[in-house]
Amino acid sequence: VSGRVGLWLVGVRGSVGTTAVAGLAASRAGMAAATGLVTEHQAMQDVPLPELSSIVMGGHDITTTSLTKRAEQLVAAGVLPAGLPLACADELEAAESRVRHGYVTEDGDQYSQVLRLADDLREFARQEQLDHVVVINVSSTEPIPAANAAHESLAALQDAWARGEAPLPVSSAYAAAAFLAGCAFADFTPSTGARLPALVELANRQGMPWAGSDGKTGETLLKSVLAPMFDMRALRVRSWAGTNLLGGGDGATLADPEACASKTTSKVRGLQAMLGHPVDGPVHIDYIPDLGDWKTAWDHISFEGFLGTRMTLQFTWQGCDSSLAAPLVLDLGRLLALALSRGVAGPVSALGFFFKDPVASDEHRLVQQWQALLTWAAESADGERA
Amino acid sequence: VSGRVGLWLVGVRGSVGTTAVAGLAASRAGMAAATGLVTEHQAMQDVPLPELSSIVMGGHDITTTSLTKRAEQLVAAGVLPAGLPLACADELEAAESRVRHGYVTEDGDQYSQVLRLADDLREFARQEQLDHVVVINVSSTEPIPAANAAHESLAALQDAWARGEAPLPVSSAYAAAAFLAGCAFADFTPSTGARLPALVELANRQGMPWAGSDGKTGETLLKSVLAPMFDMRALRVRSWAGTNLLGGGDGATLADPEACASKTTSKVRGLQAMLGHPVDGPVHIDYIPDLGDWKTAWDHISFEGFLGTRMTLQFTWQGCDSSLAAPLVLDLGRLLALALSRGVAGPVSALGFFFKDPVASDEHRLVQQWQALLTWAAESADGERA
Amino acid sequence: VSGRVGLWLVGVRGSVGTTAVAGLAASRAGMAAATGLVTEHQAMQDVPLPELSSIVMGGHDITTTSLTKRAEQLVAAGVLPAGLPLACADELEAAESRVRHGYVTEDGDQYSQVLRLADDLREFARQEQLDHVVVINVSSTEPIPAANAAHESLAALQDAWARGEAPLPVSSAYAAAAFLAGCAFADFTPSTGARLPALVELANRQGMPWAGSDGKTGETLLKSVLAPMFDMRALRVRSWAGTNLLGGGDGATLADPEACASKTTSKVRGLQAMLGHPVDGPVHIDYIPDLGDWKTAWDHISFEGFLGTRMTLQFTWQGCDSSLAAPLVLDLGRLLALALSRGVAGPVSALGFFFKDPVASDEHRLVQQWQALLTWAAESADGERA
Amino acid sequence: VSGRVGLWLVGVRGSVGTTAVAGLAASRAGMAAATGLVTEHQAMQDVPLPELSSIVMGGHDITTTSLTKRAEQLVAAGVLPAGLPLACADELEAAESRVRHGYVTEDGDQYSQVLRLADDLREFARQEQLDHVVVINVSSTEPIPAANAAHESLAALQDAWARGEAPLPVSSAYAAAAFLAGCAFADFTPSTGARLPALVELANRQGMPWAGSDGKTGETLLKSVLAPMFDMRALRVRSWAGTNLLGGGDGATLADPEACASKTTSKVRGLQAMLGHPVDGPVHIDYIPDLGDWKTAWDHISFEGFLGTRMTLQFTWQGCDSSLAAPLVLDLGRLLALALSRGVAGPVSALGFFFKDPVASDEHRLVQQWQALLTWAAESADGERA
Repeated sequence: VSGRVGLWLVGVRGSVGTTAVAGLAASRAGMAAATGLVTEHQAMQDVPLPELSSIVMGGHDITTTSLTKRAEQLVAAGVLPAGLPLACADELEAAESRVRHGYVTEDGDQYSQVLRLADDLREFARQEQLDHVVVINVSSTEPIPAANAAHESLAALQDAWARGEAPLPVSSAYAAAAFLAGCAFADFTPSTGARLPALVELANRQGMPWAGSDGKTGETLLKSVLAPMFDMRALRVRSWAGTNLLGGGDGATLADPEACASKTTSKVRGLQAMLGHPVDGPVHIDYIPDLGDWKTAWDHISFEGFLGTRMTLQFTWQGCDSSLAAPLVLDLGRLLALALSRGVAGPVSALGFFFKDPVASDEHRLVQQWQALLTWAAESADGERA
Repeated sequence: VSGRVGLWLVGVRGSVGTTAVAGLAASRAGMAAATGLVTEHQAMQDVPLPELSSIVMGGHDITTTSLTKRAEQLVAAGVLPAGLPLACADELEAAESRVRHGYVTEDGDQYSQVLRLADDLREFARQEQLDHVVVINVSSTEPIPAANAAHESLAALQDAWARGEAPLPVSSAYAAAAFLAGCAFADFTPSTGARLPALVELANRQGMPWAGSDGKTGETLLKSVLAPMFDMRALRVRSWAGTNLLGGGDGATLADPEACASKTTSKVRGLQAMLGHPVDGPVHIDYIPDLGDWKTAWDHISFEGFLGTRMTLQFTWQGCDSSLAAPLVLDLGRLLALALSRGVAGPVSALGFFFKDPVASDEHRLVQQWQALLTWAAESADGERA
Repeated sequence: VSGRVGLWLVGVRGSVGTTAVAGLAASRAGMAAATGLVTEHQAMQDVPLPELSSIVMGGHDITTTSLTKRAEQLVAAGVLPAGLPLACADELEAAESRVRHGYVTEDGDQYSQVLRLADDLREFARQEQLDHVVVINVSSTEPIPAANAAHESLAALQDAWARGEAPLPVSSAYAAAAFLAGCAFADFTPSTGARLPALVELANRQGMPWAGSDGKTGETLLKSVLAPMFDMRALRVRSWAGTNLLGGGDGATLADPEACASKTTSKVRGLQAMLGHPVDGPVHIDYIPDLGDWKTAWDHISFEGFLGTRMTLQFTWQGCDSSLAAPLVLDLGRLLALALSRGVAGPVSALGFFFKDPVASDEHRLVQQWQALLTWAAESADGERA
Repeated sequence: VSGRVGLWLVGVRGSVGTTAVAGLAASRAGMAAATGLVTEHQAMQDVPLPELSSIVMGGHDITTTSLTKRAEQLVAAGVLPAGLPLACADELEAAESRVRHGYVTEDGDQYSQVLRLADDLREFARQEQLDHVVVINVSSTEPIPAANAAHESLAALQDAWARGEAPLPVSSAYAAAAFLAGCAFADFTPSTGARLPALVELANRQGMPWAGSDGKTGETLLKSVLAPMFDMRALRVRSWAGTNLLGGGDGATLADPEACASKTTSKVRGLQAMLGHPVDGPVHIDYIPDLGDWKTAWDHISFEGFLGTRMTLQFTWQGCDSSLAAPLVLDLGRLLALALSRGVAGPVSALGFFFKDPVASDEHRLVQQWQALLTWAAESADGERA
């Protein structure tokens, strides 16, 4: 991918967004190793991805805390290294100057708002002279929206808009704006995003690639290697219970049982696919403000071996959500820019490696997802070289 | 594989051996599901493996507790289901009648003893009208033997034997006997087995396949999926400490620091290969008689993400060693019988899936090992059908 | 305490009840050590408790599975040793012959039913020539009952009964019957039991001792030593999250959110008392049928040290509920028989050692509860000797 | 205790020493809560301890990194809060100016050196106009010294010194100097310190109080509440295995098997005393540089309940060593100043609450130690008031 690439984050002033902006700046300044960046893995070295130095970041947000201020808070929380905000002050301010006001459903006529968001994206591309723009949603998780006939086709959506209705949840409004403005879209949250027939149709019409959903950064990442292990060894998993303690903004959102429902659903979905049979077991998400940006997941897996012997595996994952998610957001920006440059349209199932709930795929096993990603990337490289 | 297959266990009266004998009987009688048997995995259903009903078991041992008695002890320890010894009484007695006295280095002239062991194997094959015999070592772990020039070539070994020396450790004497008698050999322990140049030469001369070593049933199994996970996500593992609490016979053996050395070496070897860099961290093996046949492994992994953030993963694996190992021993019996029927000679790297320290391979990642196994098995199927 | 003591369990055919009956028989036959029996602790050796051999067991139940059958199921589940049901067959059958049909709210007029239950207790005492009878509720946890004016005084209760109403939850009906029949009562569950003003009045009028509630056998037991540890060291606990995975009958009951509410309330109550300040943190109880009689609790405690440094403690408790609870039920039977013999009336706060939610006490610290128990027992001994 | 109190740390420039100096300054400046300071517990509020503001710190050390520099390193390691070194710059420099060169066995004539150390202490008292001085060893753990006849009596020690010998390990030389200079002494490490007959005699002759040894800050702290819990509930502990991962300076020292021996001995000693019977189980201490000042302990406890049922408890303690130890060092300074003011001489068993290996006591149970400490402190208060 040659030229300049724009990476536009919905919710850019949140922890993940701020870490992505500050981390990109730090990487560019040689202050940070490539740790956590999948696109810097040796296996990807021949893939013609955009250089980190060619990426320009901006975004929408509805909060008012600036990126600089948020970065300082993340230093206090032990997420960002102490000197980083000062060292990257210019880049943080530059990104901050590109932040545009986000969309809330109260903002009146939805269609006008979608057009306004799309204009923000076009303006970003023009101002920064970008060849490709990728939009990624890293804002708070939404509740699952009510069923709505306007979701079922682009025509029905347009009719609803024409009647002044606001049929789309916020995340989907951003996806619509992205497609209308000629941008790729990915949803790093479990929100609806582009996963409605009307938006699938719109993406196809506009020839835009998209990916999702719900970044796989902790408990589910482990499930995606442990469940296949049990399967390959013909050990029968009998129950798999998980408890997730979260402190950050997303923890507070997920304390809302409705938002939580959308999260736990995407967490459970893959397990049955990987094991080949349903498995008993609750998944809890608890909000513990004290934990800040850190999350702790404890999983208890009961399984059966030869002659019915019962055994258990437990694990505790103590991770920093922003630190795990932010590099994957940069990875997705680079990979979707590659997709744009190749003219890929529609859901990109080969990016399932990054997600709890991959679009257009029922493959949840991490290694198989990795192999699919590498194959896709290699084909892209060939396509580009050709 | 058509015809009858012999599965001969060195150390057959131990926990793993007894569980394998009793479990095969139970499976055959429809008393046990195929749980834990990799060769019964759906992905293997087209592989022409010998039927479980065609397998006949026997073995060498130096202890005097009968298989029947040992099976009762394993019921009391919660390893075998309560009714099993009674329900399989005939099969246990039949296998017991096939047990021959094992070899200890004090037994005098090593070469004569190797010939005697080989005669036992030939007699087993003749008596039971077996088409193929597979020998698997499931006896206690040996200390690492001292270097010896007689290990370096078959000629040197034969010269040493001719001089009345006993250059081979016990496990290697069994391997030699297996090859001389036209049997495949696998070492399920970290002992030397066939891993000496002299024996590699002998296996090749005899055209025999062999596999090893050190069955991967717990902590290392988890490492073989978790280490690749960190690698694929570009997360840098900084330390990986492990503690293994074992109660069974092998625990007692491994309390001997020399035997333990051979075990911890094979445990550590793979981690560096999978991560691509050395990693700090001790591996302990502790003998706690109270735990009986159960083992508990606790691993603590410290890793680094984007911008240097430190995170940790811990797991606790509580497994029953015999229940995990016994089905793999049956799997290896079936797969090496397939190799024998195909005329495969030398180390079978495609069986690395089963081992902590795979022969002729530096691949330790479980999924890649699984894919190699399936490919090899499919080729074998083709070979056999042709 | 001289003479014969009756121990009557409400829910005697459940896991805890059956384990208590079978365990008492085994202890008496010298087949079991005193492990788990607090009243056999060396510190209690001078307390004049009734001999185990003088205890006669019976109970109410509404299920139909016999004690003998249930004991066999508990063997299969690994709770009781294999030979126990056969070795104790006579005692199990004798206890089974003393089981009387329990009470359900549908049984019609509540007052008549309470009188019927009381008659069952008097008949038990007469038939078995008992000097004292202790009734302990080990049946499934009830939901928290709705507020009812009839709970507030004995007179109001009697009026409601006279009007044909059924104001008491089932556990309280048993408590009323116990007091009317001159028996001590303890509630080993979080159900209401004697904890209503009307029943407190009745116990006082009848001069009967009672104790409760909710046996402390796992997570809360640990809290009662760990929370004081943090307090004594002036370490500030910031959050304490707990997950309980249960498989047994009580697990199924607690899957009902209303019953669960009564359980989690009694679990949380003590923590604040021990730490001196409220602490954030959810407590989950999950039903995982696969776990059978076993329960696993995982707790994650985040605390702060000098200069605000954040640290964590996690624990995993893997216990067999029946095995932990049954000896405490026998202990309570002996200690309440001692109370009866001393003429103690009303709530016995010194038995708080056994309970998550101790009556007449806000002391939740285990060691202080232990010291109070030993003091009370020593005073009882003095009282009796005098 | 009125007047000014000197707190002199052997190894003051280490992590614990620096945290104590910086933390005292922060507490004094109102920048830190009393978290972790046992002497600020409400239960101690009537004890006439010296005010934090009356404490002056100094110490011996053989390293050259200044307290200010070390404090900055501890900020980078996440042990001290970011602004602390700057905010306490004056106090750190003042303490640094009081650091005197420590003693190493190569320093020539031991007796002269002991006199020199004692002079340093007297000079400290004079310069700072101190009423009482307490010396606490927080330097690296020593190997267990060889037996030596000069340890057995003060006369023998003096004879050996007169012959120019160096019979004392370094920690004991400091203890001797403290007693000679009229100071109290405590050993926060497992080194020998005052625990030699010759030094016990010297302390008595000089009328000095002393305490030790080996601060109880993690795994052993938990043992001291959990082992009594098992005992009170008559649950039989069958094995107790522990693994300690340490990264700091002490971790490196303890990688030396000889030093480690002295540590694991003091860790194991108490368990048998608390449980009343020996218990199987290894204790490992591993040095993992990556962990820095943090330590992680994992303990696995196998225990038996009623009818022999086997159950387990596991815990993981993730603590910051300096943050846990430093406030206890300040506590010991205040409590030994109280002892000095009361004229207490000899080993102070009531301070066993702070130590893994308490002097003059076989009480390892935390609550009983706490009660003994409160009783002693109350008596001291009475003594002082009288």
